[in-house]
This record gives sequence, structure tokens and C-alpha cells, in this order.
Amino acid sequence: MRLGSDRVSNSSDFAGWAAAGQRHIEAVLDKLLLPPPQIAPQRLHQAMRYAVLGGGKRVRPLLAFAAGELSQADPQRVALAGAAVEIIHAYSLVHDDLPCMDDDVLRRGKPTCHVEYDEATALLVGDALQSLAFQVMTEHTLCDDAAVQLEMTKLLAIASGSRGMAGGQAIDLEAVGKELTVPELEFMHIHKTGAIIRVAALLGLKCGVPLSLQEHTYVDTFAKLIGLAFQVVDDVLDADATTEALGKTAGKDAQQGKPTYVSTMGVTRAKAFAEELRADAMKALESFGDRANRLRELADFIVLRKS
Amino acid sequence: MRLGSDRVSNSSDFAGWAAAGQRHIEAVLDKLLLPPPQIAPQRLHQAMRYAVLGGGKRVRPLLAFAAGELSQADPQRVALAGAAVEIIHAYSLVHDDLPCMDDDVLRRGKPTCHVEYDEATALLVGDALQSLAFQVMTEHTLCDDAAVQLEMTKLLAIASGSRGMAGGQAIDLEAVGKELTVPELEFMHIHKTGAIIRVAALLGLKCGVPLSLQEHTYVDTFAKLIGLAFQVVDDVLDADATTEALGKTAGKDAQQGKPTYVSTMGVTRAKAFAEELRADAMKALESFGDRANRLRELADFIVLRKS
Repeated sequence: MRLGSDRVSNSSDFAGWAAAGQRHIEAVLDKLLLPPPQIAPQRLHQAMRYAVLGGGKRVRPLLAFAAGELSQADPQRVALAGAAVEIIHAYSLVHDDLPCMDDDVLRRGKPTCHVEYDEATALLVGDALQSLAFQVMTEHTLCDDAAVQLEMTKLLAIASGSRGMAGGQAIDLEAVGKELTVPELEFMHIHKTGAIIRVAALLGLKCGVPLSLQEHTYVDTFAKLIGLAFQVVDDVLDADATTEALGKTAGKDAQQGKPTYVSTMGVTRAKAFAEELRADAMKALESFGDRANRLRELADFIVLRKS
Repeated sequence: MRLGSDRVSNSSDFAGWAAAGQRHIEAVLDKLLLPPPQIAPQRLHQAMRYAVLGGGKRVRPLLAFAAGELSQADPQRVALAGAAVEIIHAYSLVHDDLPCMDDDVLRRGKPTCHVEYDEATALLVGDALQSLAFQVMTEHTLCDDAAVQLEMTKLLAIASGSRGMAGGQAIDLEAVGKELTVPELEFMHIHKTGAIIRVAALLGLKCGVPLSLQEHTYVDTFAKLIGLAFQVVDDVLDADATTEALGKTAGKDAQQGKPTYVSTMGVTRAKAFAEELRADAMKALESFGDRANRLRELADFIVLRKS
């Protein structure tokens, strides 16, 4: 455990680092989402920008930055890889909010994409954003070795697909109205949210100098644990926080009969479980010493967030 | 023009070549769409197989094979690249058939994916298939140079995205109920159908030994023209052929008020236009001599097809 006073005293430093990272990612996303809205098909390009820009905590790119610091990666390269992950995340939100899925009207404090535009456009926004993510992964130099960059692109594809995020969504659909055990919930969330959070850290790492296999595994373990913690906290916030604080409809899980960590173990135990996961994640970083402080601060940020 | 009697007498040879290519692609797709249906999420994996296997003319992979013959590419590698393109095509059909898009119930003689399963599953099938296509492009060796393989993956991403297929769909949506000029129609179809047909040929080429820039441009021009011809013929068949022959609902374009080559120029002129495009495409191949015969036969196959 590395929750020493040096890190606590640095919390304002972390806030500054995170804000700078968020600004960097926002600028990169803005550039990647050119062509500007006046180029055909206009409505689609506008809607793609609407879905991605100006919102979100950018947790995944921040994780890529923090992991990239461990492997001395060029932040410009990490920003591109992190932006690709964020674009995948943004597309998944647009599709999840569609009427045939979660049927939600509010996201990041704004009307969801299909409400602001229309369903067909929102469908195409998601589709085109997924393509864009893979374009970003392949049209810029993200690391010195093209073979490694192919491997990175493969990791993102697997994390997005039927054995990752999309598969997790399908498991989520099948679970509505059922009671799940904790291991079943974990299986669902390791796919649904965990895979993309994990790949964000791995891509950040791989932009830089390769770590030893053992160090790589430590970061991977950290990312897996923190990905799960993210979801546990998400479930707690859905039950505990207000729609205003979240910028998305609160209480949806219970309303839709979705099994969550809160419905399965209750709020108190769910909070304790998130805390445990954070402690285990910190343990995975022990051997790095101060080099991994940004990752530790991010773990705190993820677990202690209020929205 | 190379429509000599040698090629006509070889038509049975072409049929055999095409059938062998279709079998090859089917086997590769079957393998790529493992895990078998009993692995979680079961329903999603079943539905992905349903959407891709056992149907379709596989025109795009055949184009990849024929182009690959020009660059002495390893057919095993071309099959993987062609399968990735076909998976993108299959995902686009699943999403296009959804109620918020074309709302169609019949595809390849079977109920569409959202009719056989449900809308949410069909949405995820399309999403997961797109990821799978990029996984296929990056987890197998498709050419000797990893940098070229990254470039190939980029070409597929661009052809799929907002400046390719998804963009074409958006233009199509905006065009419903409008009258388009021939250049506007062309702009729409170069995106919607053309981009993916074109990239199939380019990926087939790039699996092999690089051609000269001029030869590469000839094949690219051929693929662009034949991609457009494909759509003109599609419009003619939608107006002319029966639902039974097509395996999908005939007459949908007129019913939905979609501008087509038939609505814009009438059936007779549309047929003549397809013939012109085929002639121009053949001209682009002139300098290759007999080496490009498979591409020529494919052009005939595309323009003269009845379904």
C-alpha cells in the first residue's frame, strides 16, 4: 500500500496533471474529428463531434498517460492511442443509449445522440466512430516497431469485440431481470467495462520502451482490478447519486431490473468491495516505487469519485 | 476491350474458380467466427455466425482473390483480408436492416438478424463484427511488411467510416424523398458501396508483391468503376427482379422513396450505364494482358448477374 502523506500532499498536483491530460485529449479528439461539420455528410460529422467532444472524465486516456509514464512513452503518441480508446468508449455510449438498448435520454448532462439527432444517425455515429478508432490506431506512428503497433491495434479490437465490451453488453442484456452471483457479475463487468479500461493502460505502456514481462503483468493486474473497481463504484453511484451530479439518469439499473453490485451485495458491502479492489490494485504496483504514483492517484480518483 | 472468345470459352472455368473461392472464404469465415456457439455470450456468438455464414455471393473476397493473383499474393493471406472485408460488409447489412434504418425482414432468403434474434442483439452483432474485422486484419500475417499491413488496416478503416461506407449510408438517409442528379447519386454510391468494393481489390493486391504505381492505379480505377457498376446493377435488380430471386425484398427503393439510378435515369438508361462502366473498367486493365483475366471475368459476373 502506497497511500503515504507525500501523495496526499500532492493531490493538487494530480488535479493539475489530470486537467492538463484532459485538455490534451480534448484537443487531439477535436483534431481527429475533423473534417469540420461543413463537409459531407454534414449531419453525421456534426453528430460524431457531438457524441465525443466536450464531456466525460476521460478516465481511459488518463490511464494511458499514467501507464505511458512508466515506459517513458512519448505523450503525443500516448494521446493518440488514448484518444482511440476514448472514441471506442464514446461509440459504445451512443449505441447503449439507443431505444433498443438502455433507452436513455441524458448523457454527460446533454440529450443523448439519438435524441439530439435521430436513431439512424446515432447508429451510424457509433459505427463510424468505431472505424475512426481503428483508423487512428493505424495512420499515426504510435511506437517505433510497426509489428508492435499491429499488436496494439489487435488488443483494442479484441477488447472492443464479442470477447470484450460488445460481449459484456450482450451478457448484460441477458442478465436483465435475473439475480446474478458475484462471480457472474464479475464476468459480465470484466467484459463490459473492464476490457476497455485495461486496454487503455496496456496501449499507454506499449507506446514506450517495453517493460519486463513481470512489470507488464503488474500493470495489467492493476488495470484489471481498477477496471472492476470502476464498475462497482458506477453501480454505487447509480444507486446513491443524483441525476444532476451524474449528468446521466440515476437509478436506471434498479428501474430496469439490472443486477448490480448494489442489488447483489447492498450499498455498504459494495463500497467496501471497491475499497478492497483499490487496495489490491495498489499492491500490484508495489515494486515500482514512486514511478507508479500517477497510476496510484488515478486509482484513488476512480474509486473516490462522486460522479 | 478484352472480351475475346478465349474468355467466353473459359466461363465454366470461371464458375469453378468462383465456387472454389467461395468455399475457401466460407471455411475461413467459419473458423474466424469461433468461439463455437456454446461459449459466452452464446446468443451473440450464434447471431454473429447467423449474420455472416451460409449466404451471399462473396463478391468482395472474390475481388480480393482476383487482384491478389496480379501481385502473386499467397491465397491464404488474401482469404483472411477478403474475409475481413466480408465481415465489414455483413455487419453493415445487419445494421442497415434494423427498423431505424431500412427496416427489412428478409436477407439472403432468411429472416434478418433482428427478426431472427432481437434488435439489441442485432446492434451488438454489427458492433462486434466490425471489431472482429479489425482483429482479423491485425492478428494474422497478411503481408511480409508490418508497416504495409498497418496501411492495409488503415485503408479498411477509412473505407468503413464516415468518409466511406458509414458516410454513404448517412448520405442515403438524407436523400430519402429527394431527387438527386446523377453526380449526386454517384457521390453517394462511391461512398456507400464503392469504398468497400474498392478496398477489397486493394487489400488483395497489397497481400502480394507491390505493383508499379501505374499498375496499382489501373487496378484501383478498375475497382472504383466496377464498384459503381455493382450499385447501378443493384438498383436495376431492385426494380426488375423478384424477391425470390434476390433473397431480399424487391422494390424497396421505390417504396421508400429512395433516389436510385432507375428513378433518376430509367431502367433502360441505367442498364446502358452499367454496360458503359463495365467497358471503362475493362479499359483500365488493358495493359495487363491475360494476367487480369480473373478481374475481367469478375466484372462480367458483377454486371451480368441476375440477383
